[in-house]
Amino acid sequence: MARRPVLEFWFDFASTYAYLSAMRIEPLAEAAEVEVRYRPFLLGPIFQAMGWTSSPFNLYPVKGRYMWRDVEREAGRLGLPFQRPSPFPQNTLSAARVALSGADQPWCGAFVRAVFSAEYGEGRSIEEPSAVAAIATSIGLDGDAALKAASAEGVKTRLRAVNEEARTRGVFGAPTFFTEDGEMFWGNDRLETALAWATGR
Amino acid sequence: MARRPVLEFWFDFASTYAYLSAMRIEPLAEAAEVEVRYRPFLLGPIFQAMGWTSSPFNLYPVKGRYMWRDVEREAGRLGLPFQRPSPFPQNTLSAARVALSGADQPWCGAFVRAVFSAEYGEGRSIEEPSAVAAIATSIGLDGDAALKAASAEGVKTRLRAVNEEARTRGVFGAPTFFTEDGEMFWGNDRLETALAWATGR
Repeated sequence: MARRPVLEFWFDFASTYAYLSAMRIEPLAEAAEVEVRYRPFLLGPIFQAMGWTSSPFNLYPVKGRYMWRDVEREAGRLGLPFQRPSPFPQNTLSAARVALSGADQPWCGAFVRAVFSAEYGEGRSIEEPSAVAAIATSIGLDGDAALKAASAEGVKTRLRAVNEEARTRGVFGAPTFFTEDGEMFWGNDRLETALAWATGR
Repeated sequence: MARRPVLEFWFDFASTYAYLSAMRIEPLAEAAEVEVRYRPFLLGPIFQAMGWTSSPFNLYPVKGRYMWRDVEREAGRLGLPFQRPSPFPQNTLSAARVALSGADQPWCGAFVRAVFSAEYGEGRSIEEPSAVAAIATSIGLDGDAALKAASAEGVKTRLRAVNEEARTRGVFGAPTFFTEDGEMFWGNDRLETALAWATGR
């Protein structure tokens, strides 16, 4: 069987549009015979490098107002539940470390979907390590062990390296997709295009 | 025959993504039985109100680099020619005034497409009044007369009012679409969704 082309899915759990992609990417990738590679990272340092001290949706209220309405409409169109969490954006460090520590594990996709579902499907906080552990437990992991593994020094170092890779490759938002030939696609609206590109159209 | 629902198409001739919409909106609207209302405006004052002194694609080079690649790819996918003009963004005041002066005229759509085609299909400058007059002539108008009509005090006053309307309604970029029930859609990626919304899906 031929090796499947890989699509990298870069996301921060704080991104509303990454939620819309996370909930759809696996079946779409399966249909396209593409392998998904989960690339959790943190938007905060990326935004800081652009001079932004918070989410641009908070810094520019007219963009923020539109985004909430647009995500709600798009979620409806895609058949996904949507609840606006408070605060926004949430601190996603703990969840990102667990996702990174499991990026090559078979449970990674289920964990990513469970975090996004809690946050944007149900409007719950995913900031506290205890919330992240509970989510890990809900998908059949040992939550406390997952949290402990994710707080290892090696994971912290890797997360810093991943963020540096994001910056170097020109990532400025989420979700961002990369095909193996280096093409970059930004936004949930490009998920289908990115998958088509990955398979040579 | 029942009155067709109206979709407002807000654009600045400087917007690359508005080019992709301008070239597609008439046949798509015709198929959906929707009437297009052209709403030319100026992004400059809108961006200034957000603290931006130029296009965000110039202020944030990583966003700009991505945008040029993305527009090129999308134009290819949509079967539209694309040439990057220099400088970017162009001063679109003269073209905007002509479009506004003809917003209710049957030639408005043809003029809008001719300006965008010159600018982004062929990479030509559309800044100079003489270039705008030549474009007007190319679609069968008296170019000099069109330019003169567009520089009337009444058109200048209306353009200021239109821009105030854009700001008040929460427009922060282009293209932006409004349906008659007040729903706002931002970006070429939302053209089809906006048309579907206009017809009650």
